[in-house]
Amino acid sequence: MSPIDWIAADWGTSHLRAWAMAGTDVVAEAKSIKGMGKLARDEFEPALLELVEPWLGAASMQVIACGMVGARQGWIEAPYATVPCLPVAAAPMKAPVTDPRLDVRIVAGLRQDNPADVMRGEETQIAGFVALNPNFDGVICLPGTHTKWAHVSAGEVVSFQTFMTGEMFSLLGTASVLRHSVGSDGWDNEAFAEALDEAQSRPERMAARLFGLRAEALLHDQRPETARARLSGYLIGAELAAARPYWLGQQVAVIGAQAIAAPYLAGLTQQGLAPIQAAADPMTRAGLMAARKLASETPT
Amino acid sequence: MSPIDWIAADWGTSHLRAWAMAGTDVVAEAKSIKGMGKLARDEFEPALLELVEPWLGAASMQVIACGMVGARQGWIEAPYATVPCLPVAAAPMKAPVTDPRLDVRIVAGLRQDNPADVMRGEETQIAGFVALNPNFDGVICLPGTHTKWAHVSAGEVVSFQTFMTGEMFSLLGTASVLRHSVGSDGWDNEAFAEALDEAQSRPERMAARLFGLRAEALLHDQRPETARARLSGYLIGAELAAARPYWLGQQVAVIGAQAIAAPYLAGLTQQGLAPIQAAADPMTRAGLMAARKLASETPT
Repeated sequence: MSPIDWIAADWGTSHLRAWAMAGTDVVAEAKSIKGMGKLARDEFEPALLELVEPWLGAASMQVIACGMVGARQGWIEAPYATVPCLPVAAAPMKAPVTDPRLDVRIVAGLRQDNPADVMRGEETQIAGFVALNPNFDGVICLPGTHTKWAHVSAGEVVSFQTFMTGEMFSLLGTASVLRHSVGSDGWDNEAFAEALDEAQSRPERMAARLFGLRAEALLHDQRPETARARLSGYLIGAELAAARPYWLGQQVAVIGAQAIAAPYLAGLTQQGLAPIQAAADPMTRAGLMAARKLASETPT
Repeated sequence: MSPIDWIAADWGTSHLRAWAMAGTDVVAEAKSIKGMGKLARDEFEPALLELVEPWLGAASMQVIACGMVGARQGWIEAPYATVPCLPVAAAPMKAPVTDPRLDVRIVAGLRQDNPADVMRGEETQIAGFVALNPNFDGVICLPGTHTKWAHVSAGEVVSFQTFMTGEMFSLLGTASVLRHSVGSDGWDNEAFAEALDEAQSRPERMAARLFGLRAEALLHDQRPETARARLSGYLIGAELAAARPYWLGQQVAVIGAQAIAAPYLAGLTQQGLAPIQAAADPMTRAGLMAARKLASETPT
């Protein structure tokens, strides 16, 4: 087995994931629910040690982390870089640690002043994708709780936009009156395609469609999995309508886990595009690898 | 003081409100949080008695109730009437009671098959408005958790549509990432008007705007009351865009309490309309009065 020479960490609001790395190879991985949202400032180092201690030796180990860990409420604020810029442009920020076996660096997020927007974590996936696809020129879609669309050209993020589609889907499906009618799983491809098409072709009617999911269940016994697929179709359809200036006529890459990327890929294909698909974790690790190079090249 | 000769009740999901009536005059009123959503079937009669017992005499007292109390999960199901029809067309449904001093009747809701839609409670306000304005021909907007738009002609509800705007405003402002940026009170008229205008003129960009409220707060110190007014403007703007086939070129009446009706009135005025305003409670009581007449005319 190759020796572990660095640790990659994806530290978001709700989870911490870490990979023991030998160069570009994953030697081991670990995960906890100690996301940034649950931690006070002095709890970050213990939360990290809990996961990575088995991977540490006598010497200092470099940990490169991305995500909300670098927010103002995180371990240490890694100030945003302003687009247009490289997705990971500057050396990551050194975090204060007490354990001499740890050398933690946190990747900065991106900001855009007009229209105002921010990202933390996705810039690292973009950096990874760009490192692996150096000639890519087009648009990257990163579906999630807050889906990001980023226009990438000559290796730089030119502009980006965030959509709250994932969070809306979750709130409407579990906390609104629609929870009685929308299933927590199951799917209906045809209903999704139809709803997406409706939302795309008449986006101005968006606000009128949601309650119909409740009424169709009450009056016409619409199945919960159909309602679920329709809700997804309406919301992603509205997002595609609003993101049209991003994807129209562009090469599009979707970075995300299969379950969350699938409806976006279906929706974009329905619009006549041929999106590329890339898994999220390998892009995150490749981006952290790129950040690591900057860390070693730049004195901090 | 006039003798109490009937009781009017507005019994929704979250609250029960009752008025002791002498003809069309309110003699007393009472309110509890024992809404339909909190009650099992055998708890409705005790919940009603808790409020109205002081108003009862030896003889049987007629109680006319509207709202979710008539839903399938309510006291007794009062089946929907199908539009087009009078807002309150049939004699209200007799509820099973054990106390001989009570004679409870529940107004039926309305349904529309295509597009599927339902209402329970608002039909009574519409009936009240129509009773007080017999020559009204136009559109009635009833803002609330689930705002209703109803096309009324020759005293009948021709069609209607429900929008989840109120529920979305509440979920986004209190349960989404926007809760950090959106105030729980305060207002900004200019921000509302601007946001409404944006949403109206470019409704296809709706999904793109919400996260901007968070980013503007993070990057440009947008004030919480401005974010609140903007969120309201975006959502009501999207609703007005979708409800355009309802209000365009029509006389519009807005029925609702001042706080909730105000942004709708402002929005409609901004579209060049001159909406009529009517308070909700008097319309409810007038509608229940109309239902009462049907109850006494029709044997049940």
